[in-house]
Amino acid sequence: MKELNDLDNLIRLLSKLPGLGSRSARRVALHLLKSREGLMLPLARALEQVAETVKPCEVCGNLDTVSPCAICTDTKRDGSLICVVEEVGDVWALERGSIFRGLYHVLGGTLSAMDGVGPDDLNISALLRRVGQGSVAEIIIATNATLDGQTTAHYLADRLRQHHPNDTGVKISRLAYGIPVGGELDYLDEGTLSAALKSRRIVMS
Amino acid sequence: MKELNDLDNLIRLLSKLPGLGSRSARRVALHLLKSREGLMLPLARALEQVAETVKPCEVCGNLDTVSPCAICTDTKRDGSLICVVEEVGDVWALERGSIFRGLYHVLGGTLSAMDGVGPDDLNISALLRRVGQGSVAEIIIATNATLDGQTTAHYLADRLRQHHPNDTGVKISRLAYGIPVGGELDYLDEGTLSAALKSRRIVMS
Repeated sequence: MKELNDLDNLIRLLSKLPGLGSRSARRVALHLLKSREGLMLPLARALEQVAETVKPCEVCGNLDTVSPCAICTDTKRDGSLICVVEEVGDVWALERGSIFRGLYHVLGGTLSAMDGVGPDDLNISALLRRVGQGSVAEIIIATNATLDGQTTAHYLADRLRQHHPNDTGVKISRLAYGIPVGGELDYLDEGTLSAALKSRRIVMS
Repeated sequence: MKELNDLDNLIRLLSKLPGLGSRSARRVALHLLKSREGLMLPLARALEQVAETVKPCEVCGNLDTVSPCAICTDTKRDGSLICVVEEVGDVWALERGSIFRGLYHVLGGTLSAMDGVGPDDLNISALLRRVGQGSVAEIIIATNATLDGQTTAHYLADRLRQHHPNDTGVKISRLAYGIPVGGELDYLDEGTLSAALKSRRIVMS
């Protein structure tokens, strides 16, 4: 027996998920078949429901069942602060700790010459429009500390500067680089160590 | 924002899949939302379809859309040979290489004192019944080379012996232990090396 057609198709689809290869997709399929009522059918229904109800926010690009999203319409948040991130997952990461109480802007990726992603493929013009509306005081660029993330941060800073010269008073900032809290020097790469050294802070002088 | 309810529920279900934690479940959910028509809805439909159509074979415990399954009813296979495996995934592993042309019997797990799995929880009585029907010449016990797998193999061999004393001519065999093909001695554990040494074969004498 080759695996059956329906099952084959399920395994093929599962193996397209990030982190799953064909072997783990088979394992997942068997696991699901052992729990049809408890997991398999609820998962099918959840997938359909989310596919139907969850949409990108027209303002910031975050995902929600409403647009503008719950973050954009939350009046307790500081609307003068926009944190620019690559992906919706980054919004979730920052929200998990409730460490940021401003608004977000999701780019939907990074510039990437390799993958042919240019500025027009990212959610940049909407950001410029938001900034142009005048209520923004600071833009925090929080792209990843990867090559593509940094390239995108530089490009964004340039575009924002051109679009909104200094006298409009909009600040542009970036996340600090350094040693992660709890990190041990011995396990850190040279890039991180060098950044931490460059950004060192005087504690007594 | 905490993640939304629908999305929360999807992520919770995804994180129950083997190999996915809550972080990778979030990544998978975002990946799915980027490809609703191409992946998310087809996956939902495939899950529903497989949950409905794929059932265990009443003879051997393998999964198929028909029962008895396509392997059990395949007349080109050698019905005198039954390979006993733990899980359906093991059937797939053996079928992938088309290295075995007999029939299978899926136990549905192993004996496990830790997890409270006893003989009655496994598909053993059906195996004894199959053997009792008289057309079986050899039973190959192909459980995993783990502690539970080996315990189960011993138990099975005992039960089969009791049930079908030697004079019925049913042979009981087990897979060979040894060095995996392509394996280097330096990277193998002592158990495997010891088994390979014990089962060494004379090539010239």
